[in-house]
Amino acid sequence: MINLATYAAQAQHVIAAGQFLYGEGWSPATSSNYSARIDEQHLAITVSGKHKGQLKAEDIMIVDLAGQPVLSQQKSSAETLLHCVLYEWQAEIGAVLHTHSKAATVLTRLLADQDQLVLEGYELQKAFPGVTSHEGQVVIPIFENTQDIRTLAGQSLSYLEQYPDTPAYLIRGHGLYTWGKTMADTLRHIEAMEFLMACELELLKVAR
Amino acid sequence: MINLATYAAQAQHVIAAGQFLYGEGWSPATSSNYSARIDEQHLAITVSGKHKGQLKAEDIMIVDLAGQPVLSQQKSSAETLLHCVLYEWQAEIGAVLHTHSKAATVLTRLLADQDQLVLEGYELQKAFPGVTSHEGQVVIPIFENTQDIRTLAGQSLSYLEQYPDTPAYLIRGHGLYTWGKTMADTLRHIEAMEFLMACELELLKVAR
Amino acid sequence: MINLATYAAQAQHVIAAGQFLYGEGWSPATSSNYSARIDEQHLAITVSGKHKGQLKAEDIMIVDLAGQPVLSQQKSSAETLLHCVLYEWQAEIGAVLHTHSKAATVLTRLLADQDQLVLEGYELQKAFPGVTSHEGQVVIPIFENTQDIRTLAGQSLSYLEQYPDTPAYLIRGHGLYTWGKTMADTLRHIEAMEFLMACELELLKVAR
Amino acid sequence: MINLATYAAQAQHVIAAGQFLYGEGWSPATSSNYSARIDEQHLAITVSGKHKGQLKAEDIMIVDLAGQPVLSQQKSSAETLLHCVLYEWQAEIGAVLHTHSKAATVLTRLLADQDQLVLEGYELQKAFPGVTSHEGQVVIPIFENTQDIRTLAGQSLSYLEQYPDTPAYLIRGHGLYTWGKTMADTLRHIEAMEFLMACELELLKVAR
Repeated sequence: MINLATYAAQAQHVIAAGQFLYGEGWSPATSSNYSARIDEQHLAITVSGKHKGQLKAEDIMIVDLAGQPVLSQQKSSAETLLHCVLYEWQAEIGAVLHTHSKAATVLTRLLADQDQLVLEGYELQKAFPGVTSHEGQVVIPIFENTQDIRTLAGQSLSYLEQYPDTPAYLIRGHGLYTWGKTMADTLRHIEAMEFLMACELELLKVAR
Repeated sequence: MINLATYAAQAQHVIAAGQFLYGEGWSPATSSNYSARIDEQHLAITVSGKHKGQLKAEDIMIVDLAGQPVLSQQKSSAETLLHCVLYEWQAEIGAVLHTHSKAATVLTRLLADQDQLVLEGYELQKAFPGVTSHEGQVVIPIFENTQDIRTLAGQSLSYLEQYPDTPAYLIRGHGLYTWGKTMADTLRHIEAMEFLMACELELLKVAR
Repeated sequence: MINLATYAAQAQHVIAAGQFLYGEGWSPATSSNYSARIDEQHLAITVSGKHKGQLKAEDIMIVDLAGQPVLSQQKSSAETLLHCVLYEWQAEIGAVLHTHSKAATVLTRLLADQDQLVLEGYELQKAFPGVTSHEGQVVIPIFENTQDIRTLAGQSLSYLEQYPDTPAYLIRGHGLYTWGKTMADTLRHIEAMEFLMACELELLKVAR
Repeated sequence: MINLATYAAQAQHVIAAGQFLYGEGWSPATSSNYSARIDEQHLAITVSGKHKGQLKAEDIMIVDLAGQPVLSQQKSSAETLLHCVLYEWQAEIGAVLHTHSKAATVLTRLLADQDQLVLEGYELQKAFPGVTSHEGQVVIPIFENTQDIRTLAGQSLSYLEQYPDTPAYLIRGHGLYTWGKTMADTLRHIEAMEFLMACELELLKVAR
């Protein structure tokens, strides 16, 4: 049985996340999708096509880990399956956020021949779990964009099973996926990724 | 007979759009003009020369599809005719927004020898009506700037009759026109265009 | 006799201008100074060294056209004389704003060998008084920075007497001066100048 | 005996500083640390790992000049010692702020072979204590980043003892430290440094 109080609380976290992320310019034009875990088998996720800065409670629905609607006739985000595989992969993941920033879009296009973004020498790398120094590398995979979400779900899961310390992934010309134990952790990962991607882009403007 | 309640409601949509667009920096220094359809023959449109972030109800007037004032002695925007031809072209258009962003101004000047902006490979292209993949092209025509609004009205209409799927057009060194069934749709088109133009400009900074 | 109600009203305009200009990032770190005319012989002007986003009524003092304090023991801005000569030059000037934006600072340094910024081909040029087309040129003089305000006052006045249609001037590595009949007009000039300078800077990033 | 009223007042200054600095984007993803002096031997400083835009009173703790917690079981910022040596160095320092901006991060990486940032020709240099003209140089040392805070504490102190007029220092790929008599002074130094670093970065984009 789903605990509706948990759903309601998680839906509020999703709404607040949307207000922040839209305000930062990272979820424009009804793009992006967000979710939070309700229990082992269920998540609260954004309904498809909503303005992310103006989410209402009824814009957050429940799906199971197969992506099927529960207690709802609404249509969840087209990318629901990308969220589901993350929750299934690691039981401790409590939230998943997908955003569409200019920095993510531009940087992945500029790195056209690379399948990863390598971050090193930044103090802010320490915002990611388990990172205690600026001296190591944080590797963020870049997947090619596709409208075939099932393929992307499989590809992202394979990668993460091989490299479980990965804190986020990028889709080229599209955006960022990240996750964390809590919504606050996940938002911190987004802030760090957006900061670091913006820095990389600034470096390219001068040094390329 | 004009339905004044419809006028009043549409005027409120125009005012709210102005607050948003000015806040984003896309309508500086009293530039820009906005309208919303009242009925088949009439639109609510901004009076010339007003601060777009501080519009009051009396700053929104009614004109007919020939651009003539109705129930008003005020002077509507100098570009009123560009709005009128769009409403006449397609009965389903409910709102038209014209903005002056830095990205639109700079990008159209940098593309000095091109009469169109071609967008491809961006997930956000899906924000436009009928676009379901990042794989196609979205073509935005760029018209030369002129103070002869009648000429520009004819030119834009000719283009749109030939390419009716066009979601927006640009005027070089000047700004963006876009439209939609509702004000919310039209604002989504602006957000998407501004995002994509900003990305194109960033790409040019690194890659040109 | 000074009309104190006029002083109080103008001080409020100055305070509101400061909140806007600081919010835009154009008056950082207690830089900038602002004034508004009280009568033929007096202006309300910011006291030296105040936070421009947090001005209080007591931070706005009265000076005469020679820059001498009236009814005050406070010290007005070090650049008071630059304001005074503008009010003396043209009786219709009602407000003078001096700001320190990044765009003004960087652009005047990049144009190191030029004593003017020439704006052309921008629709937004029409935000300046008397400009009705994008086709002409708007010429903004750039003066060398100096701590000798008396010299700069003379230099700016000489220039304006020769070119009275000038809507603003720049000081290299320092900032912008502009003026207008009302505070609203003057703020519109700043918005237009900041927009146009930002565009020029973006063009240089790609095209230089 | 510690004056708790002074602690409580200083903690409020720290909280307000955090709201401002986070809002500007200079303290993302729980980075940064801030402090204010309570008395000759004690300072109020941020607890490690908190969201800097959402600090609560309990997130500000007391440490002595050796960096040891007083009346607290919480863990202060990992960089506490960098604050302590500044307060010990100069009795008149009342606040110390450390921020992580994109400009500081990118600029120090671009100046990879330089151990200082030299600012000259900017009017805004006058925001720093004792600077009365744009004509001199303001020299900001750049230290290499390290997780060994004790080493960095010694290095920064040695430098400042040799060059006591230094208004701030940078850590490469990491961020900015600055200080002042009051929190307001220290915030003014940050605003000035961020403005000037952003200008330097813009210049590099065009001129390098």
